[in-house]
Amino acid sequence: MMEITSRENPLIRDYTHLRDNRAYRRETGRFVLEGARLLADALESGVRMETAFFTDAAMEKHAALCQTAGQKGVRVCMVGSSVAVKLADTSAPQGIFATAFMLDKAFALDKIKLGGVYAALEDISDPGNLGTILRTAEALGLSGILLSKGCTDIYAPKVVRASMGAVFRTAFLQVDDLPAALSLLNDNGIQTLAALAGGTTRLLTQLDLHGGVVVAIGNEGAGLTDACVKVCKPFTIPMKGRAESLNAAAAAAIVMWEIMRGR
Amino acid sequence: MMEITSRENPLIRDYTHLRDNRAYRRETGRFVLEGARLLADALESGVRMETAFFTDAAMEKHAALCQTAGQKGVRVCMVGSSVAVKLADTSAPQGIFATAFMLDKAFALDKIKLGGVYAALEDISDPGNLGTILRTAEALGLSGILLSKGCTDIYAPKVVRASMGAVFRTAFLQVDDLPAALSLLNDNGIQTLAALAGGTTRLLTQLDLHGGVVVAIGNEGAGLTDACVKVCKPFTIPMKGRAESLNAAAAAAIVMWEIMRGR
Repeated sequence: MMEITSRENPLIRDYTHLRDNRAYRRETGRFVLEGARLLADALESGVRMETAFFTDAAMEKHAALCQTAGQKGVRVCMVGSSVAVKLADTSAPQGIFATAFMLDKAFALDKIKLGGVYAALEDISDPGNLGTILRTAEALGLSGILLSKGCTDIYAPKVVRASMGAVFRTAFLQVDDLPAALSLLNDNGIQTLAALAGGTTRLLTQLDLHGGVVVAIGNEGAGLTDACVKVCKPFTIPMKGRAESLNAAAAAAIVMWEIMRGR
Repeated sequence: MMEITSRENPLIRDYTHLRDNRAYRRETGRFVLEGARLLADALESGVRMETAFFTDAAMEKHAALCQTAGQKGVRVCMVGSSVAVKLADTSAPQGIFATAFMLDKAFALDKIKLGGVYAALEDISDPGNLGTILRTAEALGLSGILLSKGCTDIYAPKVVRASMGAVFRTAFLQVDDLPAALSLLNDNGIQTLAALAGGTTRLLTQLDLHGGVVVAIGNEGAGLTDACVKVCKPFTIPMKGRAESLNAAAAAAIVMWEIMRGR
């Protein structure tokens, strides 16, 4: 087994580069993950891994996980504690890190299930929100997620962590032109809905949610663009008090739940 | 107007101490807030403020806000940019900071509305989750929030920010013994529910949600303690796929929505 004690080792530099740089992730089709649970989750979900880094202590504590990784052809390296500090991106690192290949869970727009339920995320910028939405979508059984180009990277470390591995298992599609995609789906008989914080009197509880549905959720600050709203049926979650809006991930949870609860 | 250029000024040290130290917040009954929106929100919500700090640029950009604060008796100070850097707790600081007095929005357990809807949060540890739950509870019109002693501080800067000011307006009560409080409410005819990630076959959709309801939501990792579950009717949100659970704030959003949607 390879032991890495230098923070300047090329594998370590490659890891931190992947962790911090979206363009490098895209270019190489790889991303990083951290922690025992995510590593186990990725292995079980069929994610192909390249290199796993364990500290001495982590290797002892998670011996079975380390062995499974080795058996699945992952190159396992032991890293010194100062190297682990360089790799860590969490507040309480467990000393377990890996580089992995992106899964191709992408689906083509013309392969969308006509009776399915999809969320279309426009420019969601907070990694915690994007990860939470993926996690909720998986738990509630949505068919897939559409992402506008302006969304934060689905393979960013914080998104992967907040998704609790849902990113490995959820079908998603990044589209260059979200309004055009929504319009196309609408033409194909899928109901396209737009969740607004206000400006409409149509309530979530008044919608007919049968059949295929795509619900568009907008950016945390700006909401949905007019171009998206124009090709959708707008609605709002009834709200009381002085609150002007809900957190994007909370709003998405309520809307996805309401669509799925009767199915 | 006072101008502060030294990072060691006692008012600056007081601010950072309040920002970083829960015990000091409790001891002095004060907390900090950052940003134009939160400051305006706090002033409108009747929060009594002590000192507001503006950078030169922020004072120019937010002149009206600065003036309103002064008119309401807040001591307004101008701070240099190096001082602002010391005060800032956000990634894109606006140069606006204030110390404020905690509002006494606490309600007594025997004053609980018998027909009201309450969430009881046990040991919620992530400030973003706690703030988001408060924001969602306000938007959906809950009557109030019970917090166990183990919850993260409701006046922590991240909680205040994530709540988008809901912390200023939501009735909440911190209880030393949450199971005892739930038991007492149950004895008074309020239905006590416990949201679990599994281990029960009773689904959220099968509950009778009329009348007074308190729903208990547990810690992000550990869930609810047995002591809480024992005095509640346990239920689960129906889940699909490999997801083992939902994020605490997403689960709370779904549950609070389901309880409120028919009211």
